[in-house]
Amino acid sequence: MSREERFLKALAQLGCSFEAGLKRGGDYAATVCDGNRIYVSGQIPRVGDEIVHPGAVGSDISLGQAQDAAKICALRGLALIRERVGSLDEIKAVLRITVFVQSADSFTQQSEVANGASFILRSVLGEAGVHTRTSVGVYQLPKNASVEVDMIAVLNPSS
Amino acid sequence: MSREERFLKALAQLGCSFEAGLKRGGDYAATVCDGNRIYVSGQIPRVGDEIVHPGAVGSDISLGQAQDAAKICALRGLALIRERVGSLDEIKAVLRITVFVQSADSFTQQSEVANGASFILRSVLGEAGVHTRTSVGVYQLPKNASVEVDMIAVLNPSS
Amino acid sequence: MSREERFLKALAQLGCSFEAGLKRGGDYAATVCDGNRIYVSGQIPRVGDEIVHPGAVGSDISLGQAQDAAKICALRGLALIRERVGSLDEIKAVLRITVFVQSADSFTQQSEVANGASFILRSVLGEAGVHTRTSVGVYQLPKNASVEVDMIAVLNPSS
Repeated sequence: MSREERFLKALAQLGCSFEAGLKRGGDYAATVCDGNRIYVSGQIPRVGDEIVHPGAVGSDISLGQAQDAAKICALRGLALIRERVGSLDEIKAVLRITVFVQSADSFTQQSEVANGASFILRSVLGEAGVHTRTSVGVYQLPKNASVEVDMIAVLNPSS
Repeated sequence: MSREERFLKALAQLGCSFEAGLKRGGDYAATVCDGNRIYVSGQIPRVGDEIVHPGAVGSDISLGQAQDAAKICALRGLALIRERVGSLDEIKAVLRITVFVQSADSFTQQSEVANGASFILRSVLGEAGVHTRTSVGVYQLPKNASVEVDMIAVLNPSS
Repeated sequence: MSREERFLKALAQLGCSFEAGLKRGGDYAATVCDGNRIYVSGQIPRVGDEIVHPGAVGSDISLGQAQDAAKICALRGLALIRERVGSLDEIKAVLRITVFVQSADSFTQQSEVANGASFILRSVLGEAGVHTRTSVGVYQLPKNASVEVDMIAVLNPSS
């Protein structure tokens, strides 16, 4: 399967589609390139106008729901890179993701939530999806999102 | 207007001045360069010895006050780059800002707070101020600051 | 003293050893290189199977304990770079560390906690350990860790 096919399959398994476009807010860019490096703004699990699985993990939503939210964040990040450079095949490496998890007081499985995002990167990009990661538990996130993920990737020299 | 003039105008509109110097704490550097890239340490809205608008947004202070705090953080970041390389005209691009907002329990407008920082970058730097952004709601910040903003920028090759 | 000797001395002063290996979790890499830049995943103060000084700073643990936790995080980051490139002498510069501190409600000394990590970088690496820093107070961290530190460094061209 191509990266594009694996990407679409992962989206379908989550019951999501980005066909309505990748809505975004605020006075900033979704992506900025620095030579072959691409920075992706923090993504919340927004599909169309809906924030999927909002709330604090460990009280409002479950670990499994938060992992799905993290998957959607990662898929949005990939979709924005694709939008910018034309194809997921242009991604040579993922340098870092930071995963912010809206956490209940005693919820300490931020790494397990972040595994949702890591799983998407590895399953869509293969070895190119290997990345470093920082996962932390925050108090709130924009629009009461449960997860937010940002990303720095490297593109092929030709892209 | 030049960038310097727009920078000074934005400062004046906030009723702030950095003429007393940019106070900083801790055992680290305000900026570190990596070739033409410059990393700026996390900035809180400190003017002289005062932290402007401290506290949690949504309970202790209002959205508007937090936006002003975010503006001061961004202006401090610009001032530190200027201090390092001599002029705001040396900034070619802003790659990323991360905006940490000390948030009340149910405050979910972190993006709106971050717009204060984004507004400064765009209004002072123009197109060069376009950036990626991550905004999250944290539980506390150093010195009870309401906002903290860090930055990565690209300088002109000659600088 | 060499960097290696200063590194081992700092570890010994904390009563720690990484000889059992640097345990890690999750589906990601400890380090990823981008040319001469190296990204290090967020490190918690894990020694063997133990998380040293867990809990919220300001209620469960003291500032001094949190500083020790931050030191261990920084030492782990250095150990992972050494593991990847063979020697601490290959580190040319540290661009940024981000220090996430699990904070009690009214604890505002995140910078002081982060000084523990900064102290290690400066004392082991000397001038090469000068870095930019962002310190924030988060609500929770993986495995109830009190501190998490990630890092971006530059390696010597030959490494």
